[in-house]
Amino acid sequence: MWEFLFEGFLKTALKKGNTEITLPSGRVRVFGDGSGDPVRLAFHDAATLRRLLANPELAAGEAYVDGKMTIENDDLRGFLAVVVANQGVDNLTRWQRILSRLRVLIRAVRQYNPVGKARANVAHHYDLSGALYDLFLDRDKQYSCAYFRHPDDTLEQAQAQKKAHIAQKLCLKPGMRVLDIGCGWGGMALALARDYGVHVLGVTLSEEQHKIASARAQAEGLQDRVEFRLTDYREVEETFDRIVSVGMFEHVGVPHYAEYFAHVRDKLTEDGVALIHTIGRATPPSFTSPWIAKYIFPGGYVPAMSETLKAIEKQSLWTTDIEIWRLHYAETLRHWHDRFTANRDRVKALYDERFCRMWAWYLVGAEMTFRHNRQCVFQFQLARRQDAVPLTRDYIYREPDSAEMSHAAE
Amino acid sequence: MWEFLFEGFLKTALKKGNTEITLPSGRVRVFGDGSGDPVRLAFHDAATLRRLLANPELAAGEAYVDGKMTIENDDLRGFLAVVVANQGVDNLTRWQRILSRLRVLIRAVRQYNPVGKARANVAHHYDLSGALYDLFLDRDKQYSCAYFRHPDDTLEQAQAQKKAHIAQKLCLKPGMRVLDIGCGWGGMALALARDYGVHVLGVTLSEEQHKIASARAQAEGLQDRVEFRLTDYREVEETFDRIVSVGMFEHVGVPHYAEYFAHVRDKLTEDGVALIHTIGRATPPSFTSPWIAKYIFPGGYVPAMSETLKAIEKQSLWTTDIEIWRLHYAETLRHWHDRFTANRDRVKALYDERFCRMWAWYLVGAEMTFRHNRQCVFQFQLARRQDAVPLTRDYIYREPDSAEMSHAAE
Repeated sequence: MWEFLFEGFLKTALKKGNTEITLPSGRVRVFGDGSGDPVRLAFHDAATLRRLLANPELAAGEAYVDGKMTIENDDLRGFLAVVVANQGVDNLTRWQRILSRLRVLIRAVRQYNPVGKARANVAHHYDLSGALYDLFLDRDKQYSCAYFRHPDDTLEQAQAQKKAHIAQKLCLKPGMRVLDIGCGWGGMALALARDYGVHVLGVTLSEEQHKIASARAQAEGLQDRVEFRLTDYREVEETFDRIVSVGMFEHVGVPHYAEYFAHVRDKLTEDGVALIHTIGRATPPSFTSPWIAKYIFPGGYVPAMSETLKAIEKQSLWTTDIEIWRLHYAETLRHWHDRFTANRDRVKALYDERFCRMWAWYLVGAEMTFRHNRQCVFQFQLARRQDAVPLTRDYIYREPDSAEMSHAAE
Repeated sequence: MWEFLFEGFLKTALKKGNTEITLPSGRVRVFGDGSGDPVRLAFHDAATLRRLLANPELAAGEAYVDGKMTIENDDLRGFLAVVVANQGVDNLTRWQRILSRLRVLIRAVRQYNPVGKARANVAHHYDLSGALYDLFLDRDKQYSCAYFRHPDDTLEQAQAQKKAHIAQKLCLKPGMRVLDIGCGWGGMALALARDYGVHVLGVTLSEEQHKIASARAQAEGLQDRVEFRLTDYREVEETFDRIVSVGMFEHVGVPHYAEYFAHVRDKLTEDGVALIHTIGRATPPSFTSPWIAKYIFPGGYVPAMSETLKAIEKQSLWTTDIEIWRLHYAETLRHWHDRFTANRDRVKALYDERFCRMWAWYLVGAEMTFRHNRQCVFQFQLARRQDAVPLTRDYIYREPDSAEMSHAAE
């Protein structure tokens, strides 16, 4: 009986692609329009089918992680490409559409994110061993989208280019005070202090990140210019010439957007400039994948541009530029997954096989979402004054002034 | 009695600046915080005060145009700078806030804009004599924001730079088919055909513009590459590699935004690119000045970015770049007003003194709104595919490929 219902479900859920599925009874069925390379999977028990019918997105990830759904040659990339290709809004049934609207409505509850809860959400992901992140990130531990100026840039190059590009948009001058909201393991703060002669306060809620970032500042002899503080950005009291926030807005939650931008505005000096870099969706407002919310980023949400701008407009901030990076994060994630796979034995030694499967599902699923399902990166440049940055964008694409650079290097 | 009420009104309406007002009784009162150069005006009858109390923004423009409010030395620029400085949202009373929300609600009625009404709205403004526009625009009759790469660029240079900048964003190749929605007097269409070797269909609802644009194509010998059509953009049937629309979206009306972007999407080829250039407001959604709606742009509305993106997101279009021009339109309008003033006798000969006062109020008021009241220009680059334009924005800031240019010039 479950197999019969399950087959009906798969007929609508897998309209695209070429997926051959072995059911618990041993029967083999093929789904999709025959496009692309074939992907073969097997389900081994009826309980998994029931769970998939009830909550497909959550249950699929869980079934893979628990070994209840196996993929031939462990071709996760092939399988998730098919899943994501079938996820477009065009493909939703009427009932899925209603469900999806309801999920948008309950975001406010799921994403309620006061200081204490934010700390717990952050700990879930970022307090994983620093050693884990060494096994797939670049040397500087940039855990956000890299900027590929050329398709064959290495991950190291592309991450350096990301930092330099953001620095250009910040129009830094030596001696300026910079706030880095969500500073991670400190790479951005250290680069700005080192290369542009600014003073940086980096804040994070992750004890692991704070420990590592502070040690790096000491090791580089930058402790006079860079401070890392274990605190919620809402508890920072000072004002700053510049604010940078890379890959943190995804944790804010829609009910807190106005609060976030009010803090950005209030902490900026009158002629200050902020650069907010976040994952974005090129769709109307939506909701977070239940599997991602449960296993990877509790409280996380990828914003649509319209809802982000609604919050910015309310705070009387000027949006002085918006850049939209497409495919850069897909490339970044491909690099991360390649490194993760190459180091899989070491990840397994740190955690276990189940953890490896969970993270493979996360990294490949995210790559496919950026590649095929309308996910991208937004860079919002914000200011209190309309002339806080030059009136044309040429300055972003010029090499930095060499006189300034040599001064910064003093 | 009216004077007493009027004085009370002015105390809250003119909190900033330094305005000396002579009332009909001959009494003189000073309003504001004393900042800036003094501005002196006089009201000559009680009926004008009553009208100003009932609907200040509409009545002030009417009083000036009808000579019922006179400004010492006709210092319109000084007076409107004070008015605009006092118009910020921060300065609204509770009642004004409620009124302003109501006005946002009734936009849907005011901006209902089917094909026939759009034609009437356009005729009101753009069917004014072509000779009028010659008296204040640049030689190419660009009636939209110029792009000042350097503060001392001439209007002619800045308008040429605007066209070149938009062309860069369109990634044109010789032979491409381009749709220009709201083509004005044809300057953009002719430049793209002449300089980039593309084929352009320009559409306008203004008979006067259509006549002049068509004559220009003939005169330049470009009639094989450029067609001008007197039609609503919603009635165009063909598809295009590129769509450009400069200064037309302001006439669409919020209830028609989804329809507008649906047409843009449907008329683009699969790898097509569109560039929508529009006046924008760096505030939440709002409403149109009643004076502007009555005398200058019936049906017109300046969009907030959030409401524009909401409509774009619904159409499954990719927003591949957003540029925000601040102050460029203030400079453009200053040039226009200077030329208008220099040619005032000739404008008066075409129309009359009342028309001159009306247009001076419009041009100076618009300049002050861009300079001091959070108005700007948005350029949205849109596409159906995320990789329809290069993945970094460097290409916008490079000189066009010379090989391509020489090919285009064949």
